[in-house]
Amino acid sequence: MFDYKLLEALAAVVREGSFEQAARALHLTPSAVSQRVRLLEQRAGQVLVVREAPTRATPAGLSLCRHAEQVALLEQALQQDWPQLAPETAGPVTLPLAINADSLATWFVAAAAALCEGGTLLLDLRLEDQDHTAEHLRSGEVVAAVTALAAPVAGCRSVPLGALRYRATASPAFMARHLPQGATPQALAQAPCLTFSRRDRLQALWLAQIFPQPPQPPTHWLPATQAFVDACRAGLGWGMNPEPLVAQALASGELVELVPDTPLDVPLYWQHRQALPGAAVLTDAVCRAARTGLRPPAGPVR
Amino acid sequence: MFDYKLLEALAAVVREGSFEQAARALHLTPSAVSQRVRLLEQRAGQVLVVREAPTRATPAGLSLCRHAEQVALLEQALQQDWPQLAPETAGPVTLPLAINADSLATWFVAAAAALCEGGTLLLDLRLEDQDHTAEHLRSGEVVAAVTALAAPVAGCRSVPLGALRYRATASPAFMARHLPQGATPQALAQAPCLTFSRRDRLQALWLAQIFPQPPQPPTHWLPATQAFVDACRAGLGWGMNPEPLVAQALASGELVELVPDTPLDVPLYWQHRQALPGAAVLTDAVCRAARTGLRPPAGPVR
Repeated sequence: MFDYKLLEALAAVVREGSFEQAARALHLTPSAVSQRVRLLEQRAGQVLVVREAPTRATPAGLSLCRHAEQVALLEQALQQDWPQLAPETAGPVTLPLAINADSLATWFVAAAAALCEGGTLLLDLRLEDQDHTAEHLRSGEVVAAVTALAAPVAGCRSVPLGALRYRATASPAFMARHLPQGATPQALAQAPCLTFSRRDRLQALWLAQIFPQPPQPPTHWLPATQAFVDACRAGLGWGMNPEPLVAQALASGELVELVPDTPLDVPLYWQHRQALPGAAVLTDAVCRAARTGLRPPAGPVR
Repeated sequence: MFDYKLLEALAAVVREGSFEQAARALHLTPSAVSQRVRLLEQRAGQVLVVREAPTRATPAGLSLCRHAEQVALLEQALQQDWPQLAPETAGPVTLPLAINADSLATWFVAAAAALCEGGTLLLDLRLEDQDHTAEHLRSGEVVAAVTALAAPVAGCRSVPLGALRYRATASPAFMARHLPQGATPQALAQAPCLTFSRRDRLQALWLAQIFPQPPQPPTHWLPATQAFVDACRAGLGWGMNPEPLVAQALASGELVELVPDTPLDVPLYWQHRQALPGAAVLTDAVCRAARTGLRPPAGPVR
């Protein structure tokens, strides 16, 4: 069997981002943590941690971290039947998950609260565009992801969650100033829009859905979901906002749709490593929360 | 004089994140953009763009991008006096700024709206912990930053904005379950907290302010300001939340302070490149908005 004290040290260094923080979390000295990781690296015959700030795992290090989590989850399950076997130091297991910012801002916190209710899990959430969360799953950085990718990543299971509905929204003052004749391609080529990140294609997708020759609007870059809504209200630009966050403002007229009733639906999937212990419970909690914020999945379960 | 068509192509590739997107923004073909950047690189005698997804500038490329912005800003100022000189293609200038997520979630959108009122500016906001935004200024990635660093970065001016006040908050249900005897160090060593990122030291700072030997709580990692507040409400953990976002919930009892009346104030500064044209107008708009969300600066202007 592996020496799990060494694996525990490796996982803490990768999770906490530094040897000092890992030492504090494990109640060890930094040099003891460093020694354990070095010993594991000697045995593995390769580097497992990139010594930068923050520290991160090499591909080999990642696969050992994921193994350490799986074993810890299996131990937790065993301890329910054999509480007398529980080591005194057994703490919660930290699960790394990749999620898109708009899911985190709308329906996912309810899922997180349900998952962690028992006190045995902690979540390490990584934000990424929904078109790219699956890459983190593929590389082994996370054990599960909310993703726009329907096809299962190798070794993973994919469950449809439903679609997050977006509305192209702006303030009435913005409309009066920049789009007085409505959302014409000519006006949209001049009116500033908001873009979340270099990976955010939602504005471009909506434009392509409306116009055969979509305009290229100038853009602000604004990488925060709530600030995106706030910036629309403040008249900084127009942008694709999750319907749950703007439904009230649309109803009251504080925000308006650029073109009435032109939603954009983004189907989302929950993908998790098949080997993840307790995946059924996780999946159940995530699907349950998704039902409150997403539109029901269209097709049969893939 | 430089060939500004080439600089414009470089700046677009760096801003948009790919040659294809830059081409669309400039209404050119990707090969024309690529040719211009290559020509500029030949003249500069070095690589200016790292060809990865997304593309990013080398240090030399960054300094040329910053120069291109300065010239564009100077042209804008000139055109107010000489409108007949305005080239037909002159569009808004995109300013890269670094900002902490909590400022963006509380007071900065009002500043952004004021800055962009005239239609000549677009903002490219990069999120970073307030302890590290200054690094982006130092590297030349941004022209201004909201930062916790008071001392001016070389070539920059630093203006105190006031302090963002934080409260250590949790839901009453969380308190009853995890801290039934109140926030004792023993209980806090077991009760889950929330941490924004590996760079977020706010929870540790607050603990060190309260306890001579601060406990090391287990933590969730949750990199979004509004989700941080939502997760506190949902009982996932306790965390340091900006007072403007939780004042109402604290007043209604939906959230409570872990230890009554123990705020943590984080002084913030606006730092901008001294050579930035129009910096006075920018600074004025930022300071004005800061007054609505931050506590007034304590000391004299440094």
